[in-house]
Amino acid sequence: MVYKKPFVKEEYDKRIISVKKSMQDAGFDLLICQDPASMNWLTGFDGWSFYTPQAILVHLEESAPIWFGRAQDAKSARITTDIPDNNIIGFSEHLVHHRSEHPFDELAELVVSRGWGRAHIGVELDAHYYTARAHRHIVNGLPNATISDNREIVNWARLIKSDAELIYMREAGRIVTDTMNKAISRIKPGVRQYEIIADVYHTQTMGFDHKFGDYTSLCPLIQVGEGTSTPHLTWTDEPLPNQGLVVMEIAAARRHYHAPLTRTMHLGKPPADIAKLAQVIVEGGDRAMAAARPGVTCEEVEAVWQTVLKRHGYTKESRVGYSIGLNYPPDWGERTASLRPGDSTVMQAGMCFHFQSGMWLSDYGAAISEPFVVTEQGGERLSDVARELIVIS
Amino acid sequence: MVYKKPFVKEEYDKRIISVKKSMQDAGFDLLICQDPASMNWLTGFDGWSFYTPQAILVHLEESAPIWFGRAQDAKSARITTDIPDNNIIGFSEHLVHHRSEHPFDELAELVVSRGWGRAHIGVELDAHYYTARAHRHIVNGLPNATISDNREIVNWARLIKSDAELIYMREAGRIVTDTMNKAISRIKPGVRQYEIIADVYHTQTMGFDHKFGDYTSLCPLIQVGEGTSTPHLTWTDEPLPNQGLVVMEIAAARRHYHAPLTRTMHLGKPPADIAKLAQVIVEGGDRAMAAARPGVTCEEVEAVWQTVLKRHGYTKESRVGYSIGLNYPPDWGERTASLRPGDSTVMQAGMCFHFQSGMWLSDYGAAISEPFVVTEQGGERLSDVARELIVIS
Repeated sequence: MVYKKPFVKEEYDKRIISVKKSMQDAGFDLLICQDPASMNWLTGFDGWSFYTPQAILVHLEESAPIWFGRAQDAKSARITTDIPDNNIIGFSEHLVHHRSEHPFDELAELVVSRGWGRAHIGVELDAHYYTARAHRHIVNGLPNATISDNREIVNWARLIKSDAELIYMREAGRIVTDTMNKAISRIKPGVRQYEIIADVYHTQTMGFDHKFGDYTSLCPLIQVGEGTSTPHLTWTDEPLPNQGLVVMEIAAARRHYHAPLTRTMHLGKPPADIAKLAQVIVEGGDRAMAAARPGVTCEEVEAVWQTVLKRHGYTKESRVGYSIGLNYPPDWGERTASLRPGDSTVMQAGMCFHFQSGMWLSDYGAAISEPFVVTEQGGERLSDVARELIVIS
Repeated sequence: MVYKKPFVKEEYDKRIISVKKSMQDAGFDLLICQDPASMNWLTGFDGWSFYTPQAILVHLEESAPIWFGRAQDAKSARITTDIPDNNIIGFSEHLVHHRSEHPFDELAELVVSRGWGRAHIGVELDAHYYTARAHRHIVNGLPNATISDNREIVNWARLIKSDAELIYMREAGRIVTDTMNKAISRIKPGVRQYEIIADVYHTQTMGFDHKFGDYTSLCPLIQVGEGTSTPHLTWTDEPLPNQGLVVMEIAAARRHYHAPLTRTMHLGKPPADIAKLAQVIVEGGDRAMAAARPGVTCEEVEAVWQTVLKRHGYTKESRVGYSIGLNYPPDWGERTASLRPGDSTVMQAGMCFHFQSGMWLSDYGAAISEPFVVTEQGGERLSDVARELIVIS
């Protein structure tokens, strides 16, 4: 078989060097990364095996990373990464869902066997799959180590995208454009929600010019009528009504790089309040994205949005955006920079965000969002779907 | 909007009563459940919001469960559950991805405010989304409580499916049958992997007779050639070869109840060793499933499989199956009973398993799996795809 790695080896080497620099600054000898996006970003490791404990280890004095995971997935590490064979370590099968033991007992033994039992170790204390039990087994297995929260050190390293990464971001943007336009073309009274979603999945996987889409970190979301007042409902068998709101939030992913996008549709003539809300969302988003240049902080961009909102008498408490890039389920956000008050992260060229301008009021909601990349000219939109309340007549 | 709950209220009431009984036996006053499948099973709560901290609380002296989560998702709880409004509690928005605070600081405050600050609390220490940091905030916020691992108490309560649940399991079985047959019909030399996956997604979402499919807990998996020696690779743009192995593992889900299924295809005439391996897998699986009756233990069923394997000179170290039912990403397994040595769980009518007979050898692999329900007549297959090495000529 031919497996095309998403990046050349030099790209991964650069990433490891940059993370080692962050480790030195933070006082860590060793990182244990379980977030599948961090694992992939550091090494290229890919596969839906993140439901069992696994990790990439990076030690300051070890040139290559170490892959640790289930024995049956070791071959995936051999296929998808350049990690040398002696750094690919499978754990014993009986540890899967064991009542008292845990795969990370063997991870701790591995760390000791490499002579790192007294290391300063940074763990991803809040990574989705780094469970409290997993952490307990690492702590118990490494009594002489100093173990602390690495505070998303790799997530922060992922924040600025390289030119090679931006190619995938833009391709994902093109796929999500095609996918949202496909969904919009299917929205008619009487069409059932799941029929639209089936086409969304098909389009987002087919991609374009053999640039296929990967699975996205959230499933496609659709809300109808009163359901638009909350953002995370999924599809049902309900036929679309003759009149009313439909909000869809979907993404596309190229080699796991995500471009998410939200649009609001109205079946029939929209009431004035909804039309106005949509107009304000578009205006606020346009102004804020224009301000998203290198040197500006995340909270300053959010303040531009809030100014527009306030002038029209609206409030939105939830953040209006978050950084995006390489990710795996359950979330396409990077859990680092957010567009919200108090976030003083300084924007730099190559950072990517999802400007999520969703407004969820008590009885209905609307969202017209954009994925964008920070450039000297302001936020460059990665997708190209009509920025307006889309009226289906 | 009309939201059709998957079960009547009495079904949820019964579940809460059964869990309270388990809590009493285990010495817990209060359970904090973050596993989205446990949350759904206890209350019906649904939505892709599990990437932020959320939980269902069950207290022995409180008749209704409590939903705790992000404020914007509280409306989803109102729509999808019967939880009374005063038990639906949203946390403050600024806590999302906060550098030092955590939503579970407010969860701890909620527990104290209800007078449960000294309770014996069972947490899901190994649930996928129950991170080490989340646990730390609960422990720090409840210094007078006794907090311990509830050892998947709700997962175990989910093990035997009710008649109402089995309806969804069988419907999922029918959808996965249609989906696998669709995939098989697409497998031809030159077809690209992602084209097959696009059709898989479409078919598994469309379902039948308006019985739509939900997103499945793993994405569709496809391995080709040497890739068949590891189980969790995902699709690429490679055209299928003229000659060689293809293994696919997919599922279908009805209201989140999963029927997973694996089949092995061979493009062109299969070599004798592969044909023999497939024959042994089918024979071993058939014998073992016939033995899966109430009163037999999980390890006894596995031993039947091993006997067939050994007679033909094969070994398989990994477990040959695990319980299935209601689930959410990243795993459709329930993390309770496994078909493997040492698991003395006694089978009862209504338990459902995925008989995963995958054999991953050093250069290739094969798997012909089945979802089944335990009945007095032995394991009843939930799907109906040809049980053989499928030769594409």
